[in-house]
Amino acid sequence: MNFLVVVEVTLRRGIADPEGATIERALPALGFSGVSNVQAGKSFRMNVEAENEDAALDKATALAERLLSNPVIEDAVARLAEVHAT
Amino acid sequence: MNFLVVVEVTLRRGIADPEGATIERALPALGFSGVSNVQAGKSFRMNVEAENEDAALDKATALAERLLSNPVIEDAVARLAEVHAT
Repeated sequence: MNFLVVVEVTLRRGIADPEGATIERALPALGFSGVSNVQAGKSFRMNVEAENEDAALDKATALAERLLSNPVIEDAVARLAEVHAT
Repeated sequence: MNFLVVVEVTLRRGIADPEGATIERALPALGFSGVSNVQAGKSFRMNVEAENEDAALDKATALAERLLSNPVIEDAVARLAEVHAT
């Protein structure tokens, strides 16, 4: 079966995030208030062929840790894509 | 109330995605088979203060279209973060 998997790569706690900090600083000038703790990361979507959902997530997680993220400074989390994104 | 919102920015259909294509080409050599249609994007996490979930998503969507994405080539989708990510 084919599963649409989304991998989200985020910086680990304590790792400096200048992109997120810059976005957060820019918000008040653009009229957005009440937004805090902005964190920038990466996302990857892919079709994964696997026998079931767990196998698809396992494969995507292994791939994310090997190829899509730097485990020293980043966390990678794989999830199945919602059919109806909000 | 405070909501943890995740904004995912992806390239629109038809826009060239060299990063995703390069990742996909590298996969077989690393032993990953059955993975196709890799798309690279960005993700942003933020705390949004709003009266309810809908207001939080509206604010994050407006912010994403204004500041986090280029609407000519990118789509931005905001969603509330799962409490238990898989």
